[in-house]
Amino acid sequence: MIAITPWLDKESSTPIYMQLYSFMKQEIESGAIKEGSRLPSIRQLSAHLKLSKNTIETAYQQLVAEGYAESRLRSGLRVLALEQPPSGTVLPPASAAGIRSQSQKEASVRSRYDFRYGDVEQEAFPYALWRKCLLGALQCDPKEVFGYGHPQGSPALRSEIAQYLYQSRGVSCSPDQIFLSSGTQQAVSLLCQLLPLTGETIAMENPGYEGVRTVFNNHGCTVAPIGLDHDGLSLTQLSRQKAKAVYVTPSHQFPLGMVLPIQKRNKLLQWAGEHDSFIIEDDYDSEFRYQGQPIPALKALDNDERVIYLGSFSKSFIPAVRLTYTVMPLPLTQAFQQRMGSYSQSVSPLLGAAMLLFMREGHFERHIRRMRRLYQTKHKAMIAAIMNHMGNHVEIIGQKAGLHLILVVHNRERDELLQLAGQAGVHVYSPQHHWTDPGDCPSSYIMLGFGGMNGDIIEEGIRRLGQAWFGSGSHYEDNR
Amino acid sequence: MIAITPWLDKESSTPIYMQLYSFMKQEIESGAIKEGSRLPSIRQLSAHLKLSKNTIETAYQQLVAEGYAESRLRSGLRVLALEQPPSGTVLPPASAAGIRSQSQKEASVRSRYDFRYGDVEQEAFPYALWRKCLLGALQCDPKEVFGYGHPQGSPALRSEIAQYLYQSRGVSCSPDQIFLSSGTQQAVSLLCQLLPLTGETIAMENPGYEGVRTVFNNHGCTVAPIGLDHDGLSLTQLSRQKAKAVYVTPSHQFPLGMVLPIQKRNKLLQWAGEHDSFIIEDDYDSEFRYQGQPIPALKALDNDERVIYLGSFSKSFIPAVRLTYTVMPLPLTQAFQQRMGSYSQSVSPLLGAAMLLFMREGHFERHIRRMRRLYQTKHKAMIAAIMNHMGNHVEIIGQKAGLHLILVVHNRERDELLQLAGQAGVHVYSPQHHWTDPGDCPSSYIMLGFGGMNGDIIEEGIRRLGQAWFGSGSHYEDNR
Repeated sequence: MIAITPWLDKESSTPIYMQLYSFMKQEIESGAIKEGSRLPSIRQLSAHLKLSKNTIETAYQQLVAEGYAESRLRSGLRVLALEQPPSGTVLPPASAAGIRSQSQKEASVRSRYDFRYGDVEQEAFPYALWRKCLLGALQCDPKEVFGYGHPQGSPALRSEIAQYLYQSRGVSCSPDQIFLSSGTQQAVSLLCQLLPLTGETIAMENPGYEGVRTVFNNHGCTVAPIGLDHDGLSLTQLSRQKAKAVYVTPSHQFPLGMVLPIQKRNKLLQWAGEHDSFIIEDDYDSEFRYQGQPIPALKALDNDERVIYLGSFSKSFIPAVRLTYTVMPLPLTQAFQQRMGSYSQSVSPLLGAAMLLFMREGHFERHIRRMRRLYQTKHKAMIAAIMNHMGNHVEIIGQKAGLHLILVVHNRERDELLQLAGQAGVHVYSPQHHWTDPGDCPSSYIMLGFGGMNGDIIEEGIRRLGQAWFGSGSHYEDNR
Repeated sequence: MIAITPWLDKESSTPIYMQLYSFMKQEIESGAIKEGSRLPSIRQLSAHLKLSKNTIETAYQQLVAEGYAESRLRSGLRVLALEQPPSGTVLPPASAAGIRSQSQKEASVRSRYDFRYGDVEQEAFPYALWRKCLLGALQCDPKEVFGYGHPQGSPALRSEIAQYLYQSRGVSCSPDQIFLSSGTQQAVSLLCQLLPLTGETIAMENPGYEGVRTVFNNHGCTVAPIGLDHDGLSLTQLSRQKAKAVYVTPSHQFPLGMVLPIQKRNKLLQWAGEHDSFIIEDDYDSEFRYQGQPIPALKALDNDERVIYLGSFSKSFIPAVRLTYTVMPLPLTQAFQQRMGSYSQSVSPLLGAAMLLFMREGHFERHIRRMRRLYQTKHKAMIAAIMNHMGNHVEIIGQKAGLHLILVVHNRERDELLQLAGQAGVHVYSPQHHWTDPGDCPSSYIMLGFGGMNGDIIEEGIRRLGQAWFGSGSHYEDNR
């Protein structure tokens, strides 16, 4: 019998069988216990080490489970060959404490004057109501809210969304046509995977939302950029293009902010019918128009079932619910449902249930109305501050809706503008990555998001920008 | 001036300007107000209808925004041409109430004796603790938990996961190497999109997890099925295969349950090195082994940085957190980070923060220990009931770990088995879709998940199955 004499520490928090197993594994790996050798029987080793048979058996089971030994009928355990010995890294001895520094750096402090696009109002967030809905969700049937949920997303939530779409966006659809996903990029990825669109040509606004263009590209689609006229997508350019689908933002072009007029909507639908193509309508922030009513979705005109509609709670509520809803045209619904059957739903059923309660109680409708007023106030503050501190040095693009606008800074270059802003403690952004060829983005364009900032911060941020870009006071003269 | 005489209902909840706008839109669409005609000025119409100028202006703005009219300097509003008139569907008159029937059917009642795979324990779920963590998350910095969050997922949560992986799975990695996503299929989709794997050959266990095979196929990968030996993936078959990556479940083969022994792990790593390929290790339920300690992950042996590791909270906690963590090999990390920069994180930052608190307070570690004991009890109850009620009519495959097992029912066909089970009010499932060619799945295989059932239900479910399949009492004789 081979000698097995480990140091076993009975005071240690590591169980004895674990110490024994680790010791034997090391001995096998180091060659001290040789390939093919027979291990002592449980009874023998139990007597030798004065340990219970249970302890020995558990250690042996582990060795067998990991393939270090095999159990042979009536001849006990035999050590197996290791073709390429693991060099002690199974449980590396180094502490894990040192591996965290880099990630902590990532959580860097954000500037107070950060005109980042994508942030939403936080101070006026309905904490108490949302908290109540979250707690309410916890009390729902665990089979509904703790598991994977329905592949398309909760039927009750989809009903609620269908009703909302009907009332607010003029979109009439059944809950069966709705598919939830944890973000618009996830929704577009599913369209690429399941329609499928992989390998197809997709026409897309240029400039247009880079996050979606990337998803198309990463699914092997050919993205055909279609330029914009002063009133959105160029239908002249589109009419020359054959494409499986066109991606558009008709209610509020991203990033330039124009509304696609009714004539172009009709022409777009006509194009889709003639080319047997689909229109992917991304209605990302249509809730926030500051002049007149929200404009009905293109989908509302879709008699021919050509429009795949995408809506999201990221702007109308908070990004953190990670909830995008896709409305499929009726003729595609059944096939899409079947293909989606192999996929787990990516939206948390728990958050879905909380969102359902929030909508059902009428909180969501009130929240949108409240936020529309609030964003309108911010938007006014933003434009007033720009007028006041920048005057005729700049022009504003896309100022009727949404949570951002584009500033055209006359006779200046982006790099200089960004640098000067940074020196003044203000973060502003270039929109250039939304152009297929970023070089086509006018160098005078700066993107300013304001959804997450309050009026005072907006005013002070813009004041600092004006100061940094145009120098003390000089613009006041220019301006009047 | 054209005559505009709408019926305006001052008692209606629809605002007057909205009624006016709808009326005018209909008039334009019907042709009653002709293309090119000039609309009355705001002052004129205000006087005519005895409405405030604001009301008229708001209605007009909406018409302009949607492209029904355009504003001309000094000549007021002019009606534009509609090339293809929308046929009144902008806000369809039908009620939305009728569109819900089908979805409600989907939420069909599930059988009490449902051996569905994927459910987890619910009765012993730590409600109070999880509730506390959710509320704690609501109190975190809104900038962290209400927005989109870090593209890779919260740095603090990734640190916590790195520590967990080190302590529980022998995996040493930095939080920078970790990428979160709202499910394992989402993680695999990102790998396909960003490594990228689109168009590549991916070797995969056959049988193997169908959900992932589907994702590979839907990204244009060629999936090369690799058969299984009695101890997992056939390395003989793999060695003949050139593939960009191989997808494996070494800790607990899905669905057949074997553990890949150390020799094969070493050979697999060697294969990856020789072919410059990657190993995608899906460690989906490794927390639950009922004999010995959890087996260290293959990733723990990965000196050559070949293993992409996938782990999930769906089994170790609940599916509804929708949280999968991917550990990228160091050489791929930086490029993957950059590419992921264009993507929004799909995991809810709110749930991420709650999970962080749950882990940081030690609740997660305790939860796993408790669940391991609980699942072990269920597992024992399951096996005892099978022995008792089915005896030597059946064999069990994969009975050392996890939340499911495969039953081999001698001399019977699946369709008959499923039908008889259904008649007895018991839901059991065929595992055949996990075979590349479902026809290769032995017709005697039935898959039984037990994670979400308690001991009594398991016992009664198996008793009913035995009764339905083998008739009253007959198996008792067979069995002894």
